[in-house]
Amino acid sequence: MPFITMTTDFGGPAAVMKGVVWRIAPNAQITDLSYTISPQNIREAAQMLDRQVFYFPDSTIHMVVVDPGVGTARRPIAARIGSQLFVGPDNGVFTPMYERAERHGWPMTIVHTNNSRYWLPDVSHIFHGRDVFSPVTGHLAAGVPLTDLGPVITDPVRINLPRPVVSPFRVTGEVSMIFDHFGNIITNIHRDDLAQLGGAPEALNVRIGATTIRGMVNTFGERPLGTLIALIGSSGYVMLAVTNGSAAQRLRPQIGDPVTVEMFVG
Amino acid sequence: MPFITMTTDFGGPAAVMKGVVWRIAPNAQITDLSYTISPQNIREAAQMLDRQVFYFPDSTIHMVVVDPGVGTARRPIAARIGSQLFVGPDNGVFTPMYERAERHGWPMTIVHTNNSRYWLPDVSHIFHGRDVFSPVTGHLAAGVPLTDLGPVITDPVRINLPRPVVSPFRVTGEVSMIFDHFGNIITNIHRDDLAQLGGAPEALNVRIGATTIRGMVNTFGERPLGTLIALIGSSGYVMLAVTNGSAAQRLRPQIGDPVTVEMFVG
Amino acid sequence: MPFITMTTDFGGPAAVMKGVVWRIAPNAQITDLSYTISPQNIREAAQMLDRQVFYFPDSTIHMVVVDPGVGTARRPIAARIGSQLFVGPDNGVFTPMYERAERHGWPMTIVHTNNSRYWLPDVSHIFHGRDVFSPVTGHLAAGVPLTDLGPVITDPVRINLPRPVVSPFRVTGEVSMIFDHFGNIITNIHRDDLAQLGGAPEALNVRIGATTIRGMVNTFGERPLGTLIALIGSSGYVMLAVTNGSAAQRLRPQIGDPVTVEMFVG
Repeated sequence: MPFITMTTDFGGPAAVMKGVVWRIAPNAQITDLSYTISPQNIREAAQMLDRQVFYFPDSTIHMVVVDPGVGTARRPIAARIGSQLFVGPDNGVFTPMYERAERHGWPMTIVHTNNSRYWLPDVSHIFHGRDVFSPVTGHLAAGVPLTDLGPVITDPVRINLPRPVVSPFRVTGEVSMIFDHFGNIITNIHRDDLAQLGGAPEALNVRIGATTIRGMVNTFGERPLGTLIALIGSSGYVMLAVTNGSAAQRLRPQIGDPVTVEMFVG
Repeated sequence: MPFITMTTDFGGPAAVMKGVVWRIAPNAQITDLSYTISPQNIREAAQMLDRQVFYFPDSTIHMVVVDPGVGTARRPIAARIGSQLFVGPDNGVFTPMYERAERHGWPMTIVHTNNSRYWLPDVSHIFHGRDVFSPVTGHLAAGVPLTDLGPVITDPVRINLPRPVVSPFRVTGEVSMIFDHFGNIITNIHRDDLAQLGGAPEALNVRIGATTIRGMVNTFGERPLGTLIALIGSSGYVMLAVTNGSAAQRLRPQIGDPVTVEMFVG
Repeated sequence: MPFITMTTDFGGPAAVMKGVVWRIAPNAQITDLSYTISPQNIREAAQMLDRQVFYFPDSTIHMVVVDPGVGTARRPIAARIGSQLFVGPDNGVFTPMYERAERHGWPMTIVHTNNSRYWLPDVSHIFHGRDVFSPVTGHLAAGVPLTDLGPVITDPVRINLPRPVVSPFRVTGEVSMIFDHFGNIITNIHRDDLAQLGGAPEALNVRIGATTIRGMVNTFGERPLGTLIALIGSSGYVMLAVTNGSAAQRLRPQIGDPVTVEMFVG
């Protein structure tokens, strides 16, 4: 049974796209991955994918419709990257996938899906999610080989994903995601970046703006309710949270605000 | 495999209704079409259905629970209209489907689903979505013939859907939907209505309130970021948008506000 | 085909958990039950489950991730209660299920799912939904017997669910849920509690704060638009509503505010 996920900035379920897929691949199992990406926010979609897709069954097709360039010359693409498949606009939204493939030596094939035989007969100028990406996804799910969808390309668009600066005593990164519902703040500083500081988590301070959190913890329950804490989030990145509260409301950060982790010098 | 969509004004997934359907039709594939219809807004639900249902596989059952008359004398109905099936209250929510059938000469059968054998044993006064429409949908999905559900009717309730006024030099319609997430404004003026003006899109002006947009475009990328544009939306209706912004925030329109498209007189 | 529901306080679809389940049980049919539980609100999740789970097919697995104690000593558990299965944290969220089982004499088996063979290989400190509950749910769906998941326990954590006080002429309960989208207010006073008052619904007054509603109705359509009404909700509890309006906006109640139903003394 083919599995499909959908990631969009629609603000609600992308039902019509499921209809288009099911007409072509009636046995596809489809789930929304996210439909609350901020409008046209390619980086947010890229990060959301990166946190989730590799937990899915092999050959799951991850379709993305965050597509500010719809109707212009930007290419529609599909790709096999490691165990997973991807369909969407060539606007850099798959950059973290390319980087994972390069880091781990995974095979990677990207095609420009310009074979209109696999599109809907009428293609609107503004909704390729329905008219191009969904039928292409459906045909992939129904067994059409990736390379039938169009010619292989090797120059996909990439976006710049800021990296933390690591020095012997300090790692400086930034706020990369804010989860409003819980109020958690995710940074781009990975657990592996901290390894180079050499200290135990309890011996690390985390600074954001004028606030310093002394010592990282392992989980929420280690501090009293209402305490601002820093810990490693579920995807391996340093996260700021308030136990049973909202770090986002307490600190009101913006995406891109600097965050520093440094050794505690008592 | 039977396909089912659900359209509600619940503000969240209609899970309990899926449970009821699956008890009767365990192999049904169910998706939310929308659960964010404004409370009791029959016209909005009708328009949402009209934009989406005909992209689904043949014999998909589209269940609607936007039902201000629940528990009163309003009839529960089910219908086959062209290739699709429908279940819901007889309050006019399927009016655009009836009109499509009449325009295209599709076969149409509507039944009053009063055969309580296909309802849950206990029917609440206020949640027929769970107690009547879901089991009826489940039985339809499991193969019960439409006409076993109750007697055929030919007088379904219809709602009034405003039509634009077309004259040789001008089409006057109104705002019909506002998508808050993107801030796009959809009108009830169809591409076909503009054909009668005879001009190319670039030669048409669009007026709303005190604002005039000079010349329509084909897609977002044709104008700089932040520009108010008019174009044909993905369902064929004139749409107002701001590239990478929100026309709804810029213009703050209400449903029903007049919109005029007229030939550009240089 | 195994059925699975997911109830979380994530504020969006729990896609990654579906991926984990599908890797283990590819034929599972998964639906969100709710993802809009208020953060860490165990009681709200308990009430949401209680209203819905028994409408699902037998052996549906209801997974709950409302888990303020994640990463501490709180146990992960799984249970068979009557016809349904449950997976989640041992924090009292299943209390209404235990009470139903005891009231009806249903069989009940609860296990401490500490057999890490059925977890993901790497378990984060803060996302057991993905790393523990999802794989356990997947293995249950794939046929692993409940008692293979860990030892049976008989002392699950319970939460206190307030009960109304019933006297010969008056029942005093409280506001238990507020549905913002419709603005309906649900109380903890059940239809069965009113039986002891002996009067017909029309003969009962409902008081909340300084407001008295004279006579209960059966459904919305019995009163003019905009009227504040009291009626029995779809799960059997006294509910306050405004026809085509919002009782929550009119009364602005808090969870826990007292509500009294008493016989009308003309």
